[in-house]
This record gives sequence, structure tokens and C-alpha cells, in this order.
Amino acid sequence: MKRGRFISLEGGEGVGKSTNLLFIRELLEQQGIDLLVTREPGGTPLAEKIRQLLLEHTEETLTDQAELLLVFAARAQHIQHVILPALQCGQWVLCDRFIDATYAYQGGGRQLDQHTIAWLENTVLNGLVPDLTLLLDAPVETGLQRAQVRGELDRFELEELAFFQRVRQAYLLRAAQHAERFRIIQACRSLPEVQQQIRVALASLLPKYSE
Amino acid sequence: MKRGRFISLEGGEGVGKSTNLLFIRELLEQQGIDLLVTREPGGTPLAEKIRQLLLEHTEETLTDQAELLLVFAARAQHIQHVILPALQCGQWVLCDRFIDATYAYQGGGRQLDQHTIAWLENTVLNGLVPDLTLLLDAPVETGLQRAQVRGELDRFELEELAFFQRVRQAYLLRAAQHAERFRIIQACRSLPEVQQQIRVALASLLPKYSE
Ligand SMILES: Nc1ncnc2c1ncn2[C@@H]1O[C@H](COP(=O)(O)OP(=O)(O)OP(=O)(O)O)[C@@H](O)[C@H]1O
Ligand SMILES: Nc1ncnc2c1ncn2[C@@H]1O[C@H](COP(=O)(O)OP(=O)(O)OP(=O)(O)O)[C@@H](O)[C@H]1O
Ligand SMILES: [Mg+2]
Ligand SMILES: [Mg+2]
Repeated sequence: MKRGRFISLEGGEGVGKSTNLLFIRELLEQQGIDLLVTREPGGTPLAEKIRQLLLEHTEETLTDQAELLLVFAARAQHIQHVILPALQCGQWVLCDRFIDATYAYQGGGRQLDQHTIAWLENTVLNGLVPDLTLLLDAPVETGLQRAQVRGELDRFELEELAFFQRVRQAYLLRAAQHAERFRIIQACRSLPEVQQQIRVALASLLPKYSE
Repeated sequence: MKRGRFISLEGGEGVGKSTNLLFIRELLEQQGIDLLVTREPGGTPLAEKIRQLLLEHTEETLTDQAELLLVFAARAQHIQHVILPALQCGQWVLCDRFIDATYAYQGGGRQLDQHTIAWLENTVLNGLVPDLTLLLDAPVETGLQRAQVRGELDRFELEELAFFQRVRQAYLLRAAQHAERFRIIQACRSLPEVQQQIRVALASLLPKYSE
């Protein structure tokens, strides 16, 4: 059986990941692709419980280190129980955030050491890399304005502007370092324009599929 | 201010850690020592939530890697918010299980790589080591029989005998490798005999305190 393709969707707050996830899903399913749509942190019942611990704000501050370890604990569950089994069965996997979000948020945002993240990546991902990563990039203010409409803010959304600037820069650095799998989407444009860019980016993956 | 002393209590299932924690507490408080008693996994509200994820058995199997990362996430919270602040204020800390339990359960029991655990130890503990570790050692069967009386078994207590044999061996190996801080207590003996051994082991710490 041909292994499925693994696509991750990345970007800061409110850039349009969830919106375009649905668009990509339709696009791929129209091609007859058997697709599993999932998200991080989360993707399994236990990983979703960990997501709650990551997003809720309580009196007890979550240390940066504990945050990083929780992210990878959830990811270990997600990879072993959901992502790898799907790919091995030939399903494609479309994931709302994956490893690059850790470099962006815990590395860029929290300024945790890159080598610490890289060590955890090696240990937990064991070579698993998305085939294609769509980075929805927009000025921080644009995304925050779009996200604000949604109501109550989670623990990350409460961060200061400089935090999100660092997140954006770290994402762009990742894209430069892993240019072979990254496609940068100008997410500040109108939705039809964003989706046209996404269509083009996905095309690079589709011929390989039908070969 | 003189930094407090850090004592950990280790050992397999049902060897008498919680029972003797209370005994040690009385003994130290009689000496006028300001003592904080805590446990792992747990010790903060968030770490206790992580403890729940570790101990409950659900349909979704917790992978060994996720288990290890959750243990260290809880420990990061516990160290930063509870253990270090107490020690720095001159309080003594008495902890029911600590780092050696990870080498015993995740290293010995689950057979995870020692280097992986050591890397996480370096990252999260950053040099923090108990001043004294009391290892309550008893044949596996003795502890399990004692523990069985307590009712419903948690996720670890459901393991097979060979798992607990590896846990015990790993504890004894740690004790040999860190002989300077470990005291092995023959926990299969009667409670008064166990407590006499504990009294002797603690004496080594007390003169240093009053110097
Ligand atoms: N290109 C666009 N132009 C204008 N509005 C957009 C565009 N894309 C998405 N939006 C709107 O912005 C808001 C945030 O979008 P969405 O929830 O998809 O972002 P997100 O990246 O998933 O956010 P989060 O990081 O919080 O999960 C929604 O109200 C969505 O309709
Ligand atoms: N020396 C002893 N002789 C006989 N029974 C004992 C002795 N020490 C403890 N017990 C009994 O064994 C049972 C288990 O003891 P305890 O709960 O202290 O073990 P524990 O090491 O904390 O277990 P766990 O690993 O599950 O936390 C209790 O019922 C306790 O009263
Ligand atoms: Mg979203
Ligand atoms: Mg106990």
C-alpha cells in the first residue's frame, strides 16, 4: 500500500488555518483522496485533555518547560495512535498545526532553546516530517483582529504583541530552513485570493499522487 | 538563609512509603524542622491533573514516551512552584517518590532508554538532587500483597510481576550508582523495625543541620 501524504497547516493566531482546513479538505476529497483531518495540540481524547491543560488559564502558571513537555506528550499520542496508522493505511493526513508550531510558539514566542526542541523532535517524531507545510503568513495585527471576534481568549491569545511577532519570525525562519516542504501563503489577502494560492501549492503534491 | 534539606522516599508498590512518610514527618517536626510534605507525580494542582492522566486507565493506551514526558511536565511544575521555593526559604522538603522513580518505572519497568531519561533529568532538574533518598526495598510480592488490600488498582498496579521485578532491580541499581545519598531500608520487616532503620538513616542528616 502506498503511504499517504502528510500536510500541515501553520501560522499565528487567526490567520485562517481552520477556515482553510475546510477548503483543503473539500479540494482533496474532490480528487477522491481518503483524508483524515486532525489538529494539534490534540487529535486523540487524551491529547485533547492535554490541550485543555495548555490552553486554560488557571492561578498556577504553567512553566515554559512544562508547556513544552505537554506539547510533545500530546504529540506522541497523536503520532502513534492517529497520524502514523492513517499514513500507513494510505490515508492522507491534514493537520491544523504540527511540529513547526512548537518552534514558533515555544521556540520563538517563549524563547526556549532550539536544541531542546530539536532533541524532543528527534525523540518523539523519529523522522516523521510533513510532505507539505502551508504557512499562512500575515501581519500579527491582522490575525489578532480576525481572532478577536471569536470571544474569550485562551492562554496564548493573552500574550503581548511582541510574543506574536516572535512567533511570526520563527515561522518564517522555519520556512526558510525547510524550503523544500514549506509554501508561504499571503494570508492577509482576501479569502478567494488565499485559496487560489493554496490551490497552487497543493498542485505540487497532487501529480505525485496520481503517478 | 540556610537552604532546606531535600529528602525523597522511594520504592515499589505497597512497600510502605506513605505509611513511613507520616513517621518521618513526626520525627522531623519533633526536631523543630519546618517541613513541607509532598508527592510525585503531583504536588501542584496542575501536576495532580497530570497524575490523573498517568494513573487512570482509559481505552486509549498511553504510549511509554507520552508517559515519560507527562511525568517530567508534572515534575517541572512541582520543582518550580513548590520544591525550589520551599528549599530556598529554608524549609525541608519530604517527597513521596521523585526522580529515581522515573529511572525505576519508566527506565526499568517500561525499559525506556536511560539516556533519554538522563537528558530530561538534566533539562528539568537542572542539578537538583535529593540530599537523602530512602529506598524502601522489599520482595515484589510483599509490596503487592500489602497494596492489594487498598481496593481498585491504578494503571501501574495492573502491570505484570516481571514489570515490578524490573522496577525493583532498577531502584537497587540507582542506589548502587548514587550510594552517597541512598539508604536502603529493609521494608519487608515489621513496621517498628522499618522505622528503626529510618531513624538511623535520618540521623546522618540531622547533625549536619544543627551544626
Ligand atoms: N483571508 C481572510 N480574510 C478575512 N477574514 C478571514 C480570512 N481568513 C479567515 N478569516 C476570518 O478570520 C477569523 C479567524 O479565522 P480562523 O479561525 O480560520 O483562524 P485560525 O488560524 O484557525 O485561528 P487560530 O490560530 O485561533 O486557530 C474567522 O472569523 C475567519 O472567518
Ligand atoms: N512494615 C510493614 N509491615 C506490614 N505492613 C506494612 C508495613 N509498612 C506498610 N504496611 C502496610 O502496607 C500497606 C501499603 O503501605 P503504603 O500505602 O504505605 O505503601 P506505599 O509504598 O505508599 O504504596 P504505593 O506505592 O501504592 O503508594 C498499608 O496497608 C500499610 O499499612
Ligand atoms: Mg483555528
Ligand atoms: Mg503511597
